[in-house]
Formats: sequence, structure tokens, C-alpha cells
Amino acid sequence: MRVDGVPYRTIWPAEDGRRVRVIDQRALPHAFRIAELASLADAAEAIADMWVRGAPLIGATAAYGVALAMVEDPSDAGLARAEDRLRRTRPTAVNLRWALEAMRAALAPLRPERRAAAAFARAAAIADEDVAINRAIGAAGLPLIAAIAARKRDAPVNVLTHCNAGWLATVDWGTATAPIYRAAEAGIAVHVWVDETRPRNQGAALTAWELGRHGVPQTLIVDNAGGHLMQRGAVDMVIVGTDRTTARGDVANKIGTYLKALAARDCGVPFYVALPSPTIDWSLQDGLRDVPIEERDPAEVTDVLGRAPDGRVGPVRVCPDATPAANPAFDVTPARLVTALITERGVCPASAEGLAGLFPERLRA
Amino acid sequence: MRVDGVPYRTIWPAEDGRRVRVIDQRALPHAFRIAELASLADAAEAIADMWVRGAPLIGATAAYGVALAMVEDPSDAGLARAEDRLRRTRPTAVNLRWALEAMRAALAPLRPERRAAAAFARAAAIADEDVAINRAIGAAGLPLIAAIAARKRDAPVNVLTHCNAGWLATVDWGTATAPIYRAAEAGIAVHVWVDETRPRNQGAALTAWELGRHGVPQTLIVDNAGGHLMQRGAVDMVIVGTDRTTARGDVANKIGTYLKALAARDCGVPFYVALPSPTIDWSLQDGLRDVPIEERDPAEVTDVLGRAPDGRVGPVRVCPDATPAANPAFDVTPARLVTALITERGVCPASAEGLAGLFPERLRA
Repeated sequence: MRVDGVPYRTIWPAEDGRRVRVIDQRALPHAFRIAELASLADAAEAIADMWVRGAPLIGATAAYGVALAMVEDPSDAGLARAEDRLRRTRPTAVNLRWALEAMRAALAPLRPERRAAAAFARAAAIADEDVAINRAIGAAGLPLIAAIAARKRDAPVNVLTHCNAGWLATVDWGTATAPIYRAAEAGIAVHVWVDETRPRNQGAALTAWELGRHGVPQTLIVDNAGGHLMQRGAVDMVIVGTDRTTARGDVANKIGTYLKALAARDCGVPFYVALPSPTIDWSLQDGLRDVPIEERDPAEVTDVLGRAPDGRVGPVRVCPDATPAANPAFDVTPARLVTALITERGVCPASAEGLAGLFPERLRA
Repeated sequence: MRVDGVPYRTIWPAEDGRRVRVIDQRALPHAFRIAELASLADAAEAIADMWVRGAPLIGATAAYGVALAMVEDPSDAGLARAEDRLRRTRPTAVNLRWALEAMRAALAPLRPERRAAAAFARAAAIADEDVAINRAIGAAGLPLIAAIAARKRDAPVNVLTHCNAGWLATVDWGTATAPIYRAAEAGIAVHVWVDETRPRNQGAALTAWELGRHGVPQTLIVDNAGGHLMQRGAVDMVIVGTDRTTARGDVANKIGTYLKALAARDCGVPFYVALPSPTIDWSLQDGLRDVPIEERDPAEVTDVLGRAPDGRVGPVRVCPDATPAANPAFDVTPARLVTALITERGVCPASAEGLAGLFPERLRA
């Protein structure tokens, strides 16, 4: 999407085709920095130290990391070393493993001297595939926004979102944001309520940044405020992303999503989840029972990262020292609270039947 | 309650009976400071600049402010000046106006030379009345906790609370915390999930401080986490306070309360609201329609106050500069989501009938 008018992706090859550039997301929202990845080590560091984050973007970065490794050492040993190195950066990232397998499948059959060029081509294809999926999610979600816009006439459509399922988490477009950006491009007046999304404030830091830089009207709110806004009719729809969706449509997403789904149900506001189909875990049914919830560092709760008036970026403690804190990173929204899923193949009910209708090849014999 | 073993109230007369001491809550949670109020001007500043906060404590401080004024100038003009000065400190505080009227009623009939002593006595009585009300709320709520404790045998009773309806907001005991402190005194194992309560973080800064210093086991969580914890059976009951309750039991409280009430309902967790009866607004019925919601400074959303590693306390910005933000300070939880109200007269359903049963004198003829 655009940053102050200039189109960007989150990752792209440099002019010489042998290096890669990424937006260094550690600096956001306080600075916009481009980082250059010139080696396997750079790519591994970019993933491990979260210069890049978001499952699809991690996958694309891993793919380019293999490509950079093939410039350095295109041998079978070099390929194995690259895979091993990159896999260890974020051990639980599904897209990362998938991207590494795709790269191996493309490169292993080739002679070493052909691998570097093929790797860059395959990595570019992986990035393009992510863009295509997200653009398709946007196309599927656009009519949902357009229908509300038609009902509201000239008033803006108010969309509430949680966390960052935006273009910064993908190669472009984002998942939850794709319908919003598509609507904005289609000339529909859209306004986004951005949940700050404690503890890591991805809404305040990333979603607010990307919407603001692209020029989409928005208002930042604390996570506590969404229910009140829905009660008052100030929210027309909710669109969130998901880290993992079960085969029956239960949705694991950033902590706090469940509370917004409850408020949406109570207030008659439609609650949509946008997702690329690779995030559907067809092996799971009951999200509450089956999805493990990551428990993260309590310091993310006791300390808040931000920029002081003197410009320094760092943490401040918001509670007494030595206060015990718990930090579950995700929650599960039961399918019964989800109005519909927005996928790259279209919109479907959050149910086994709904998903099977869009993805019939997944039906068991 | 106790601070590291020493019993405190939030306001008390100094040894000479002609000055007043308060906990300077601006320094919390990073420092524990006692401030001395020696004049009307001091008392007015303490209220206006929020050395003290919480409706009952503001009322008690205003009462002592009148007493300090009577030492300086016990004339009718002095009494009028004190009332006027104190009333302007927090124009919307109902308890403040009530306390000033009570002081006027006690002092106006007296000759000036008798007013100072009478004023200190009346202020002390107002403080003691608040303590008695909160102790009674604690007594009313204790059996609710004890019943869960009996069911859970040796496992601690997990209580979730939002914002600070603790002893720091009152003269002692608090409202939502009174049953918790009573249970702890009764030897019941209690553990409190403390919502941090963005944007002003009263949970993290005040509730965590007072529970920790009194020695009640607690865990700080972000506001997003409570629903997840309820889904997992980690919350046995919710107890919150209220700024204003309508005659039919709708509850206005700190923003985000409604979301926790929805989760409690969805998960079968009892949701209690503790309140002194003066916070019931018998003139209002429909809370959503009738309770005005204060919209506060957006800077509370865009900036978070905390203590940097170098010890400096100040704000940090968590979003891009110039991000628009909205900051509704309260929301309304409909009575249908409230399991019961805990008042100084006992526990009742959150309904017109329930409240009328406890407060029959309020029934219209």
C-alpha cells in the first residue's frame, strides 16, 4: 500500500536482484526505515529480531533468505544450512516452514549454479501469491462494506479492527484491512476504529501507522472502548484477522478478539474474520479445546513501549515493581459469534459446512 | 487498609487536630507519599490536582477542607468562600456537593467561634460514615465469596476486577474490594485478576498497588485478557464498582466494564457490582439513554504514563504523532448482565424491584 503517496510492499528485491529490502518494523510507528538484507544471516536476523512480523511476511522473508543463501553457497549443504538456520528463527511459524518446503521443492532438483536465480524467482512468486490471496480477500470483503455504504448513503462506514492484520503483516494489502483498502480505492467512505491492542499495541503502533500513511480515516481507541461504541451505533461492522481457524470455524486471534465478538453479537453488529486459507487448521475442530495459547513475557503487561517527549523510545512501567502479571497472547472466538469468514475464495459461514462449501477438496472421503 | 503492615486510611487528621493528612495518589504506584493539608487552599489543590480521587474520598476531603477554612476564617463569609472554592475543584462530583451541604447544615447554625471544632468533628463523621458503608458492603459481599470458597475447598477464589474501586477511592475498604479484603481477613484464600484499565491504568497503578501492599494475592492482566480467562474457568466471579447506577440497575462504570459483563454472561461467571447507595441515581431508568458519558482528553489514549528505567515518571507515545483518538471514559452495563448489586444494606437483583426491596423509602407513593 502507500506510504505518504509512494507504493510499497513490506519486502521487495533490490535493483541488482541479489539483495532484498524490507520495512524495518521495529522502528514503527516512530520512524520509517528501510533495511537491506544482503545475506542469509541478515534474513535470519530480520525474522528472529522481528524487523518483519506477521505469518505471511515471515514466510516471504524466509523464502528470500534461502535465495540470499543460494548466492553465498548454492550447494546441497548450503541449501540444508539455510533451511536449518531459518527454521530456527521462529519455531512455531507455520508459514515459515511452508515457505522453506516450497523453496526446497523448487531448488533441490536443480544444479547448484542454477539455484540462485531460481530461488529469487520462487521467492518473488511466493510474495506475489500472498499479494494475490490478500487482494482476493479484499475483493470478497468489498461487497460487505459496499452494502453497508449503500444503506448509509453518504455517511462513512465505521469498521472496527483489532491488532494488526494489515499490510504490514503480509506482503501487501493485509487480511482484515484488504476489504478496507479496496473500499477506499472504490471511493467508499470508510472510517476505522483502531483498537490499540495491549499488551504489544500493534493496533496503535502498526495499524494506526499504515492506515494513516495510506490516508484511510481512523480513530485510535483503547481496547475497552469498542463495546461502548457498538452500543451507541458507532460501529457498522467488525473485521479482524486470525492466527488459526479450525475446520468448524472457531477463530484464534490476538487476545481480546473474543470480547469484541461478544459485544458485536450483543449489539447486532456483524463480526467478520478475514483469513487466507493456509491459516485454516483442518486438523482441529474445537478451538477452545484444541488451540494452544501462547503465554508471553509478563514484562509486556507491566511495561509499555513508547516514545518519550525527548524522543527516546523505550519501556515505561505502569504498575508497582514486582507485580505479578499474566500474558496470554491469543484467545478463541467460538464460531457461533462469527457472522462470516472472508477468504480468498469468497465469504462463507463460520462452520464446517461453510468452509467445506468453499474448500470442497478438503472434505474427507 | 494496610500498607506493608501499617494500617492507613486515605485521609486522616494530624496529631494537632488542625491539619489533615492524605496519601498523595499522584505518586502512586511508584512512590508512597503522605501530603499534609494545612489550609483551604491546600485542600482545594488536593482535590483539583487529584492528589485524592474517588467520589467518597473527594467528599471527605472537601469536608475537611471546610474544617481547615474554619480555622482560618470561621465567619459566614469564610464559610461561603470555602464552599465556593471547593465546589469549583471538581464541578461534576456529586459526593463533593453532598459533603459541602452537610458541612453547611452542621456549621451555619453555630456561632463562628464554635465552627472549627464542630467542622473537624463533622468531617471526621463523614469519613467514618464512608468507612461504615464500605465495611457493610464488604459484609454483604463476603458470603458470596465464602460460598464459592466452600465449593472450591482449598483452591483460591479467583475474583476479577476492573479499574480501582478500592480503598484508595474511598476513605477505607473500597467498594468492589471490600468483600475481597473481608474475605482475606476471614482467612479465605482469594486471588484477584486485576484489569490494567486503559487508558489511565487505574488497575495497574492503584488496584495492584493497594492489593500488593495489603498482601492480597493478585495477577495483573491487560484489559483484553479477562474474557479468555473466563472461558478457561480461571475466574470464579467478577466484582466491579460503579460511578452511577440507575433505579432499574443499569450500571455506569469505567470504560470496558460492559465487555467483562458480556464475557461473564457468556461463560456463566457471576458478575457483581458493589456500590454505596448514594451512587444510585433514582431519577434515571435507562442507563444507555440517560447517563451522559464523559469524553476525555485523547492524549490519555495516545500516551501512556509510566516510569522509565532511569526512574523518571512521564508519558510515552504509543502511536504515530497526530493519530486521532477517542476517549469515552465510561460505559453502561445493562442490568440484564448484572448478577446482583452489593450495597451497604445487602445484596439485591439489579432491577427496580430488587433495589426497591432494599430501599423501600425510595418507592414513589
